[in-house]
Amino acid sequence: MEDIISLSYGNGGKRTSALIEEIFLPAFNNPQLSNLGDGAILDIKGKIAFSTDSFVIYPYFFPGGDIGELSVCGTVNDLLMCGSIPKYLSLSLILEEGFELSHLKKIVKSIEETAKLAGVMVVTGDTKVVDKGHGHGIYINTAGIGEMRPGLDLGKDKIKKGDKIIVSGSVGNHGISILCAREELLETDIVSDCAPLNQVVDIILSFGKSVKILRDPTRGGIATTLNEFVEGSNYSIELIEKNIPIDLNVKTVGDLLGIDPLYSANEGKVLVVVSEEVCDEVIAKLKMNKLSSNAAIIGEITEEMPGRVLLKNHFGGTRLLDKLSYDMLPRIC
Amino acid sequence: MEDIISLSYGNGGKRTSALIEEIFLPAFNNPQLSNLGDGAILDIKGKIAFSTDSFVIYPYFFPGGDIGELSVCGTVNDLLMCGSIPKYLSLSLILEEGFELSHLKKIVKSIEETAKLAGVMVVTGDTKVVDKGHGHGIYINTAGIGEMRPGLDLGKDKIKKGDKIIVSGSVGNHGISILCAREELLETDIVSDCAPLNQVVDIILSFGKSVKILRDPTRGGIATTLNEFVEGSNYSIELIEKNIPIDLNVKTVGDLLGIDPLYSANEGKVLVVVSEEVCDEVIAKLKMNKLSSNAAIIGEITEEMPGRVLLKNHFGGTRLLDKLSYDMLPRIC
Repeated sequence: MEDIISLSYGNGGKRTSALIEEIFLPAFNNPQLSNLGDGAILDIKGKIAFSTDSFVIYPYFFPGGDIGELSVCGTVNDLLMCGSIPKYLSLSLILEEGFELSHLKKIVKSIEETAKLAGVMVVTGDTKVVDKGHGHGIYINTAGIGEMRPGLDLGKDKIKKGDKIIVSGSVGNHGISILCAREELLETDIVSDCAPLNQVVDIILSFGKSVKILRDPTRGGIATTLNEFVEGSNYSIELIEKNIPIDLNVKTVGDLLGIDPLYSANEGKVLVVVSEEVCDEVIAKLKMNKLSSNAAIIGEITEEMPGRVLLKNHFGGTRLLDKLSYDMLPRIC
Repeated sequence: MEDIISLSYGNGGKRTSALIEEIFLPAFNNPQLSNLGDGAILDIKGKIAFSTDSFVIYPYFFPGGDIGELSVCGTVNDLLMCGSIPKYLSLSLILEEGFELSHLKKIVKSIEETAKLAGVMVVTGDTKVVDKGHGHGIYINTAGIGEMRPGLDLGKDKIKKGDKIIVSGSVGNHGISILCAREELLETDIVSDCAPLNQVVDIILSFGKSVKILRDPTRGGIATTLNEFVEGSNYSIELIEKNIPIDLNVKTVGDLLGIDPLYSANEGKVLVVVSEEVCDEVIAKLKMNKLSSNAAIIGEITEEMPGRVLLKNHFGGTRLLDKLSYDMLPRIC
């Protein structure tokens, strides 16, 4: 194979076969991998969750991860948020003519390692090549299937007054790390929090029906996701600003660049609404896991201003937190 | 909403919500549609097929279809080729900044109509926006889930000497129609054969275990797919050139442009290997359906030259048909 991807790698012929045989099959060798070529045949029990995400992040190698790791974490985390145990992934690549094969190999390696970590198998895939100037190196789509855990009853409609809002750790790191990496504005030690959240969600969902809803606050940050929890409902959310964990470097760089960490994307955090009775125990258990050692109760469900999210600041003042409405930062996932 | 897609439509905030509420939800309203936001919860019985494809075709409106119709047909047909009944689709869009909202609406309408025709539900999705110059209007990924039909036993390993090769209709139309549309080289009446193949596959699979393998010959054309049927096996394929259905206008334009219809993509055709006993009956039944009225027996499985595909021409001569190995035509799907 050449060192550079040319259009013929996407024509479905000999070079497409070479990519599959030399790069994809060795990385994703598993008994479920499609041998009919068009799709995988899988054994599934009961209810399933089905989710998809395309990843167009730039730069595709960034502090704390790369587009390959992100494309596994993104879909795995979405499947986890549905209350399922992630099982199978599809992997579809859109490569730009001229993309370096060495970069592809590195990204495929990340996908392989992250899939192993997250307990999922890549079972089917597709590769397309677009002509130079109509892509940006690599875009990745993953879709995923998970098996639903029994005994859960998740949904916005389960939220009640007095329920507590928990975040599993410091917020805003992913988005701000990507901006710093892309613009080469600042040399910082901020790295993406990109991670598969299987263990964190295991801990949370061990609390059964005391868990009302969970979501990973990616694009739009925790402010946007919290708005989605209550929009159209009779409830509001009151957040206590000083309780929201934000790393000092994220806060400093955010202030400098005018990026609010509450609106900045996360790729390894969970926001969860739980009933008040269990919230301290949830926090205690989360703190024992490396990925959620910084978990905190950041607010509660109220009826004060239906459909809205309110932020109580250090001085007792209150302001409305709306959904993200402008272009804070494009292509961060 | 504005008439033009800007980066903020992909930021996960208010404009992303507006796209979902004003364009996607009205088109794909169904009880399975994810209400948790991160994925859909589905009831599935037994074994499933899982498949994915990204579509980067240009132009995205072409004679006989558009990228929306194609993105449903492509994944539906792959699920059918696995021997499953297609049930659910995910839909992930990569839009380029500046893309016209009216084009998006037209494409979403096509997706809605084709999904209805193919009996599948779009149950989960994602939208990303890339900055101008890093896309080409719209790229679409679909992944799909189908329920496996019982009593089938498909695979390359089922192929035996004497089995017959059937194609469900004229070959090469899709690829050649796209080339004509893109380059504006020629005004022709050639249109894409893009279609969901549910009924055609129903007919074929009603022959149970007499059916050895089926595949839709997309990128690389029938020549490439036939090579995949026998590569690495003890069998070869002998094709009778005069029996391969090729429309006269496709043949003429193909000759003129130097494009061999045997290597040109199809998006509404099936290649199938069946045992000799049933082949005439399969053809008789296929000819009764509009999408396969031109079906033909085009060759058979031999042991003459293991792993290879041979084409017998009108004058009794024979040549090897290899897989597609050069860039005949990029971005035709």
